[in-house]
Amino acid sequence: MRILVDRNIPLADEFFGELGEITRLPGREITAEAVRDQDILMVRSITRVDAALLEGSRVRFVGTCTIGTDHVDLDYLRERRIGFASAPGCNAESVVDYVLSSLLMLADEEDFLLANRSVGIVGVGNVGERLRRRLAELDVDCLLCDPPRAEAEAADDTQGDFVDLDTLIERADIICLHTPLTREGPHATHHLMSAQRIAALKPGTWLVNAGRGACLDNAALRQRLESRGDLRSVIDVWENEPAIDEALYGLVDIATPHIAGYSLDGKMRGTELVYQALMRHYGLPARRKLGQIKPDPWLRKIVLTGWAPPLEALALCVRACYDVRRDMVGFERYRRRFGMANAFDRYRDEYPVRREFSTLRVDLKKNAGDLRDAIEGYGFKVKLASKSSS
Amino acid sequence: MRILVDRNIPLADEFFGELGEITRLPGREITAEAVRDQDILMVRSITRVDAALLEGSRVRFVGTCTIGTDHVDLDYLRERRIGFASAPGCNAESVVDYVLSSLLMLADEEDFLLANRSVGIVGVGNVGERLRRRLAELDVDCLLCDPPRAEAEAADDTQGDFVDLDTLIERADIICLHTPLTREGPHATHHLMSAQRIAALKPGTWLVNAGRGACLDNAALRQRLESRGDLRSVIDVWENEPAIDEALYGLVDIATPHIAGYSLDGKMRGTELVYQALMRHYGLPARRKLGQIKPDPWLRKIVLTGWAPPLEALALCVRACYDVRRDMVGFERYRRRFGMANAFDRYRDEYPVRREFSTLRVDLKKNAGDLRDAIEGYGFKVKLASKSSS
Ligand SMILES: NC(=O)c1ccc[n+]([C@@H]2O[C@H](COP(=O)([O-])OP(=O)(O)OC[C@H]3O[C@@H](n4cnc5c(N)ncnc54)[C@H](O)[C@@H]3O)[C@@H](O)[C@H]2O)c1
Ligand SMILES: NC(=O)c1ccc[n+]([C@@H]2O[C@H](COP(=O)([O-])OP(=O)(O)OC[C@H]3O[C@@H](n4cnc5c(N)ncnc54)[C@H](O)[C@@H]3O)[C@@H](O)[C@H]2O)c1
Repeated sequence: MRILVDRNIPLADEFFGELGEITRLPGREITAEAVRDQDILMVRSITRVDAALLEGSRVRFVGTCTIGTDHVDLDYLRERRIGFASAPGCNAESVVDYVLSSLLMLADEEDFLLANRSVGIVGVGNVGERLRRRLAELDVDCLLCDPPRAEAEAADDTQGDFVDLDTLIERADIICLHTPLTREGPHATHHLMSAQRIAALKPGTWLVNAGRGACLDNAALRQRLESRGDLRSVIDVWENEPAIDEALYGLVDIATPHIAGYSLDGKMRGTELVYQALMRHYGLPARRKLGQIKPDPWLRKIVLTGWAPPLEALALCVRACYDVRRDMVGFERYRRRFGMANAFDRYRDEYPVRREFSTLRVDLKKNAGDLRDAIEGYGFKVKLASKSSS
Repeated sequence: MRILVDRNIPLADEFFGELGEITRLPGREITAEAVRDQDILMVRSITRVDAALLEGSRVRFVGTCTIGTDHVDLDYLRERRIGFASAPGCNAESVVDYVLSSLLMLADEEDFLLANRSVGIVGVGNVGERLRRRLAELDVDCLLCDPPRAEAEAADDTQGDFVDLDTLIERADIICLHTPLTREGPHATHHLMSAQRIAALKPGTWLVNAGRGACLDNAALRQRLESRGDLRSVIDVWENEPAIDEALYGLVDIATPHIAGYSLDGKMRGTELVYQALMRHYGLPARRKLGQIKPDPWLRKIVLTGWAPPLEALALCVRACYDVRRDMVGFERYRRRFGMANAFDRYRDEYPVRREFSTLRVDLKKNAGDLRDAIEGYGFKVKLASKSSS
């Protein structure tokens, strides 16, 4: 079989090599002509997949190694019985790392402990649910808002944990948005964080949006920050990307160009998920496992003593693995050099390698109680070393 | 013998314990009454040592575990034949760490390599000379200005490397001040960086002052930053500490409250230097060595692969060990809470533990050429591991 792969998809040879001959192209060069003689097509969101691309080609399976499918005409694929897979949730861990790194940076600047704040999670799906789990391990109080889930789970009686958004806004110190963008239906999320709700945020609230830009009324947030400046904000996703509101950009505490999910591990997991779907499609066993193929991170290990101060040690591990300031500073540098709109896309294109917390091994002495809980809670891989092995 | 020790002097028991009975007091509580029956007095700069303190006491030796001696009436001690020692150079490595961490932060924000810039060092004594050596190992071009040294060394022909200050200002991209404050003589340093010289700095110059505040005309720097804003500045020492110019504070890139030399290692080295002088004074062998007594840092080790990208890996080690942003953010937090003047002293009093680069062990694979040079050049302790020991 012939397989055409976007060259930004990592581990393509490792996963797809056994199936046939691989051709790699930049996403923008994946044209109708390029796909004509291919059997399998693997893309990222940059390639529009529709009749114009596929009509008359041999392609029988399309995979997109991304969670979004906006760039794919699913109806057309169904109609033509072309197999399809995307990679839902592949970069959820990456987003959680981003959120925790950001919260830690703000906590550090304001000198308090996350454990004393309550975090409201709006949208408790792949990302929100993983965030909830890690915060629970850290004994942070969570408030959850997810009406679709609340309804679906009402039947099985496990709900009751969910609150409505206005209650969450009233009670939470930190609000994290992880909803998709929907414009219709009873739970539409467009401007879910409306001007009115933004006005209602308690002074001192921290607001994080790493879901979709338009779930939050950007102009209203700008107005509140301009007039009162009593919130702290972390904005990774924006209305009108890449032509985002530069005044808002200047006012938020942590501003990044939609890269929360951009860890290398997330991208590799995307390849694996699509590989698994592809093998199912062809009725073949999916023998390759990401765990066996994945490259080691260049930061292999951090060794701490048992009496390391837990908060400092934790901050060290987080920053060593992924310090969100890297992307703030990097993006700002691009902005000054290329202008906002170009910087936005370009920083994403040229995104420097980032590994997830789960890839960093932290060696601790056997007696490191609190420290171990904190470091494991954040998602690092702890190994307890015996005294002699240091 | 009875020994009175400022309780902020680390390792006092370990070094002085064998000599007699140790009493520890906060610096401000070291009064005439407290010292009356003591044989030996060990202070830091907070305690004024003069006739008012010592007259009528049994004290025969005074040590100050600091490089400065402004708080000690040396004439009085000489007159009364009281032994004396200070700890010159004890925290020079700490200042170099501070400077390198600051330069790396600025380089990172501006996206270029230190190796491509020339650094002018003004005052090439304990601190300046060590900075020169580390930069030389990193292949950074250095320009040196130190007229007293140039004159003293003119005889032995090894000079010629020295330039005058105006030439240095013309040629260097980065200027680091490490001069003491002197108001008299041909090489007086008061406002050595005068309004005129500050006006002459090339746009884009980086200016670092970690020597003494008044070597640089603070008002002139503020004016240049207000009117042109085309410099980057790192200011650790200020005119009129602790009542420093808040407008200037708001304009510099890295602003810290005279803590460049505040590593724990520097303080411990201060204790050791004074201990050695004390033993010489009493004709006793100085058997204790800092290397044997010094506590391990809680960050014991970082393990990297051989293919780690040198610049990123270096930045990781620097930040893991000492990230100057810790002190920027920490000081700013204190300022907001306590007001500038209180914050300045208080942050110094409560200074969080900081270890020097030389205490961090970095394990590399045997083949890590460039990486090894960079990491050793910055002053870290490199160990080359065989493949199996990872
Ligand atoms: N910033 C990034 O780089 C990045 C990376 C990954 C995902 N995302 C975005 O984050 C969002 C969440 O991703 P996911 O993988 O968790 O999606 P998901 O579909 O698994 O979860 C979304 C959750 O939101 C809930 N929801 C829907 N409408 C809601 C409403 N009105 N109020 C509250 N909750 C509502 C859904 O019930 C669902 O549980 C998506 O928009 C995704 O595109 C961004
Ligand atoms: N920021 C801090 O926390 C911190 C810590 C340690 C030292 N310091 C200060 O840094 C300065 C340097 O410390 P050091 O231990 O290296 O002192 P040092 O005495 O060893 O060196 C000072 C050098 O400056 C030179 N010098 C004198 N006048 C000069 C002039 N007009 N132009 C150029 N050079 C001149 C001297 O010749 C000498 O070589 C001192 O003022 C010290 O107090 C600050």
